[in-house]
Amino acid sequence: MKKIAIIMGSISDLPVMQDAIDVLKEFNIEVEVDIVSAHRTPDKLFDYGKNAHTRGISVIIAGAGGAAHLPGMIASLSPLPVIGVPVKSSNSIDGWDSVLSILQMPSGVPVATVALNGAKNAGILAAQIMGASDKAVLDKIVAYKESLKTKVEEGAKQIMKKK
Amino acid sequence: MKKIAIIMGSISDLPVMQDAIDVLKEFNIEVEVDIVSAHRTPDKLFDYGKNAHTRGISVIIAGAGGAAHLPGMIASLSPLPVIGVPVKSSNSIDGWDSVLSILQMPSGVPVATVALNGAKNAGILAAQIMGASDKAVLDKIVAYKESLKTKVEEGAKQIMKKK
Amino acid sequence: MKKIAIIMGSISDLPVMQDAIDVLKEFNIEVEVDIVSAHRTPDKLFDYGKNAHTRGISVIIAGAGGAAHLPGMIASLSPLPVIGVPVKSSNSIDGWDSVLSILQMPSGVPVATVALNGAKNAGILAAQIMGASDKAVLDKIVAYKESLKTKVEEGAKQIMKKK
Amino acid sequence: MKKIAIIMGSISDLPVMQDAIDVLKEFNIEVEVDIVSAHRTPDKLFDYGKNAHTRGISVIIAGAGGAAHLPGMIASLSPLPVIGVPVKSSNSIDGWDSVLSILQMPSGVPVATVALNGAKNAGILAAQIMGASDKAVLDKIVAYKESLKTKVEEGAKQIMKKK
Amino acid sequence: MKKIAIIMGSISDLPVMQDAIDVLKEFNIEVEVDIVSAHRTPDKLFDYGKNAHTRGISVIIAGAGGAAHLPGMIASLSPLPVIGVPVKSSNSIDGWDSVLSILQMPSGVPVATVALNGAKNAGILAAQIMGASDKAVLDKIVAYKESLKTKVEEGAKQIMKKK
Amino acid sequence: MKKIAIIMGSISDLPVMQDAIDVLKEFNIEVEVDIVSAHRTPDKLFDYGKNAHTRGISVIIAGAGGAAHLPGMIASLSPLPVIGVPVKSSNSIDGWDSVLSILQMPSGVPVATVALNGAKNAGILAAQIMGASDKAVLDKIVAYKESLKTKVEEGAKQIMKKK
Amino acid sequence: MKKIAIIMGSISDLPVMQDAIDVLKEFNIEVEVDIVSAHRTPDKLFDYGKNAHTRGISVIIAGAGGAAHLPGMIASLSPLPVIGVPVKSSNSIDGWDSVLSILQMPSGVPVATVALNGAKNAGILAAQIMGASDKAVLDKIVAYKESLKTKVEEGAKQIMKKK
Amino acid sequence: MKKIAIIMGSISDLPVMQDAIDVLKEFNIEVEVDIVSAHRTPDKLFDYGKNAHTRGISVIIAGAGGAAHLPGMIASLSPLPVIGVPVKSSNSIDGWDSVLSILQMPSGVPVATVALNGAKNAGILAAQIMGASDKAVLDKIVAYKESLKTKVEEGAKQIMKKK
Repeated sequence: MKKIAIIMGSISDLPVMQDAIDVLKEFNIEVEVDIVSAHRTPDKLFDYGKNAHTRGISVIIAGAGGAAHLPGMIASLSPLPVIGVPVKSSNSIDGWDSVLSILQMPSGVPVATVALNGAKNAGILAAQIMGASDKAVLDKIVAYKESLKTKVEEGAKQIMKKK
Repeated sequence: MKKIAIIMGSISDLPVMQDAIDVLKEFNIEVEVDIVSAHRTPDKLFDYGKNAHTRGISVIIAGAGGAAHLPGMIASLSPLPVIGVPVKSSNSIDGWDSVLSILQMPSGVPVATVALNGAKNAGILAAQIMGASDKAVLDKIVAYKESLKTKVEEGAKQIMKKK
Repeated sequence: MKKIAIIMGSISDLPVMQDAIDVLKEFNIEVEVDIVSAHRTPDKLFDYGKNAHTRGISVIIAGAGGAAHLPGMIASLSPLPVIGVPVKSSNSIDGWDSVLSILQMPSGVPVATVALNGAKNAGILAAQIMGASDKAVLDKIVAYKESLKTKVEEGAKQIMKKK
Repeated sequence: MKKIAIIMGSISDLPVMQDAIDVLKEFNIEVEVDIVSAHRTPDKLFDYGKNAHTRGISVIIAGAGGAAHLPGMIASLSPLPVIGVPVKSSNSIDGWDSVLSILQMPSGVPVATVALNGAKNAGILAAQIMGASDKAVLDKIVAYKESLKTKVEEGAKQIMKKK
Repeated sequence: MKKIAIIMGSISDLPVMQDAIDVLKEFNIEVEVDIVSAHRTPDKLFDYGKNAHTRGISVIIAGAGGAAHLPGMIASLSPLPVIGVPVKSSNSIDGWDSVLSILQMPSGVPVATVALNGAKNAGILAAQIMGASDKAVLDKIVAYKESLKTKVEEGAKQIMKKK
Repeated sequence: MKKIAIIMGSISDLPVMQDAIDVLKEFNIEVEVDIVSAHRTPDKLFDYGKNAHTRGISVIIAGAGGAAHLPGMIASLSPLPVIGVPVKSSNSIDGWDSVLSILQMPSGVPVATVALNGAKNAGILAAQIMGASDKAVLDKIVAYKESLKTKVEEGAKQIMKKK
Repeated sequence: MKKIAIIMGSISDLPVMQDAIDVLKEFNIEVEVDIVSAHRTPDKLFDYGKNAHTRGISVIIAGAGGAAHLPGMIASLSPLPVIGVPVKSSNSIDGWDSVLSILQMPSGVPVATVALNGAKNAGILAAQIMGASDKAVLDKIVAYKESLKTKVEEGAKQIMKKK
Repeated sequence: MKKIAIIMGSISDLPVMQDAIDVLKEFNIEVEVDIVSAHRTPDKLFDYGKNAHTRGISVIIAGAGGAAHLPGMIASLSPLPVIGVPVKSSNSIDGWDSVLSILQMPSGVPVATVALNGAKNAGILAAQIMGASDKAVLDKIVAYKESLKTKVEEGAKQIMKKK
């Protein structure tokens, strides 16, 4: 089975991006994690983007904050689907900068954007993309969705007792 | 080969969503188009979302404006990857309503959001998702990306003459 | 007398939504509290929305954060008046996401939206809706409004002494 | 049967507010229309707000633009449920001013806010409030909701032919 | 000499509004402080607004948060210049609600708006308004402006040593 | 009687600023109009700001767009009350730039800000400032406020006929 | 003398970027114009960014719209000062996307950002950068600034006649 | 060699602006630091802006918060390139006020704006401007950019071990 690449612009993005790693491990999907900075390691960015699809990777998850160019540049260089995670970094203007820098890509070069700090959803989306062609993964997604209900039901019981 | 479903909340979204239909036809990928309104046809929404993955569909593209709940509700009901297209409708507050209603999904239920009115990119992203497991589609994506360069190069020649 | 239903997307919304419960108890209006997640328990959402008006409920208060689809989807499924409470959740973009996801409903399916985290006002509004046809409740509202003055007057006395 | 009051801050708001009048007429609910300006006719505002509930009115719909104080001031003066319609007026800052001036009411004084220029939904919401205690009106709402589906289904047929 | 009225919507606004009281005391201008809530004490609001100019008041400073209607309603009722102070209250959407509710007044009814939480500037502005017709106050303003320089100069000396 | 100065950053601001000139003429208050650009004629700005109060001027109205520094710089240089009019210029970001550049002045240097393009209100406010110490002007303001009612009443009659 | 490079992401940006070309010609500074798309011609982007400083270029002006990555990526690749021009493109969210994508660069990689559509100012800034080390250019800047005054003075004369 | 001037509106801006001082010292470029308040020391502002280029200064870095007029006024007075640093001050509306007050300068008077609190980048940009005509500084920039990579590489190693 192919694997999912998870990259981020800086090690300071790891606390947010860890959620993507964790949820993919839950799904038993192999991940590869690296730091690739669009602005500080442009050569690595180029190599990474151009070759990922030749190395057995099927989806790239890229997280970055501020004027976040990593997801869009990887999408420019790679034919693979790229999922962008806007990270709310310290000097961000409330996260709007990373959200708009990742979401508003020009015609021809999409980035599949998830919510601010939504790395967990990026991981689930990557699994769903695999599941689109892999029945075993699709079944795991179906089971995962079922498990979401259980949690809500427990909360519902709790709230009814409490009141 | 599996097909891509393209749904929208209202026929008034068609001028925007047509770009997704057109680009997928260029890629020779089969599409299925329908109107499903989260707010006006909730029963159809439920049937659609629950059964899409059993009808040979691999990706769902959902476009909606204002308080846009269609992409998120479909993502809630289906295990397939869902691509959301925020549509700038007439009484929208500059498009912010549809962008945030689609992007900011809670943990567990991702929507792959593209730019405001970015239906063409939704189509390309759907093709890339297919290409993640289908070499023939991946090759088409590679060729498509190559074609983007040609257009820019023509513009570059034009600008140099003109000046 | 009919009762008011108070639902929320997650147990984490309870600290905000408790204000609605409390104010309705003050008015001696019966409430029913539950957790219904648009994205994680869509089947419960459907049952809830379709049947609430047949179970002696007159108004539904629904609170949710982020891309908040619960109030709008309940409004889509139920003929009852639905009051939406935008909740400022942890990864919210300053609350704008829940405000716009609840407020900007399309033509035909209104949600009576109150202020960000304004669950107390949702409770009062529900009482006012009952009071529109129930003289006893209306009288309580009139008395409640009178009590608001008293508090301000006390503050005014305090400020004049203090200065 | 009681009637619905529809007031607005200026005659320039009528093109937007007409939708509320029209939809209530469709429901055969009696309406009373007037211009009441919070800023230019404060005495009328006071009389109106204090006496509406004694004149057979059950719900007040108030529309205004810019720093829109009419809905909130009426809600301050009347025990009736007040529905606020933010109107996008000419010098508005994209409608944000009227939306926030109406929505963000302090604890104790709710305004049931609908979407920007959403007067039609204000009318439907007023009918739903009546329907909360009047079976005949509730049945009309149920029928109205059913009619929304028909329109979508026609659009769906059209889109399938067209493609 | 006439006096300045300082009113606020709630005693919780006092920590912000105190700056206006303090700076006017520095200028030896008499102030009158009160709590007047547009939404909770509308009768007091009316009396206050209609009579202030007959009681020896020359300028009214009004502070409020959220959907802040106090400054605008006072401006509607009084012929005096009204200075509005947007207060960033606890459930405010970053202060935008009070800023826009106070600033965006309709044609005919101005409110002199100062910065978010800018009560000190409201006090200075009130003094300047008095100074426009009172040479003694104008001289105090000139002296005050001179004193602002001294503080900056001290900072400048400090920074040059430190470096 | 003293006069009001009306200045603007560019002749392109005149269509907006004309409203201030017109309303002050209605009040029979003498005005002086000039173009003073903070960024293109800084020397004129300095002379103007430093000397206005010595030339029989009692209030300065300053309008500007974009990064609007004229009102704030004049307020820095003059002890007189300064009214700022944010002008929505052609390359403005929806007017937010001029609103915030004028409103958010630092402690010590207030600008009395009115609504976006609200030059008419700037004129009325200037008259009110004069009226704070001049009974004849105050009476005109009272009469003006009365006239606002008449217009609304005419609209109200019209709407009742029309319906 | 060295020359200024002006690049843009698409030929559709030329109407905005032409202002930079024109103002630099006025200053008799040599310019080189090209189209370089970060997302569609990443190889050209790399070559361009890496080599510009070896080809006699002293400043790079880069204009782009939407999720505008061109200025930031060029700044990542080149040691030269890069001036970014946010262009308000057709599907932009009011220009906020290009402004934030260009402005909010991470520590270590600055982009000198000018106003939305502010290509003329980008040209002037490039000349000023040259003038920082070239007395002849500095003198031209001084003269240019002088000429700005003349225009304002003419407007001022016009406004005084007109009134 | 010429030196860089770093000025700020208040000593409270120093914690942010220190980054510019530090990075320029790393580059061995001489800096001159001062406090110049556009609003509180307008005379100093004028002298400073008019004479900086005659005192061996080549670039001015100006930082300010709120309605930040310092960078723009210095740019109005000096022919030198001016770099503006928006500072997120205590009563700022999330930093939007200083960003827009600095960025949105009118045609003819550019300010090279960097990210919110981006003083370090302002320092690097000033060095790059010097480097545009000074090979030794350019070489330092090239080395600095190289050093950015090293840091990322270390983070990358760490992340691969950790996982």
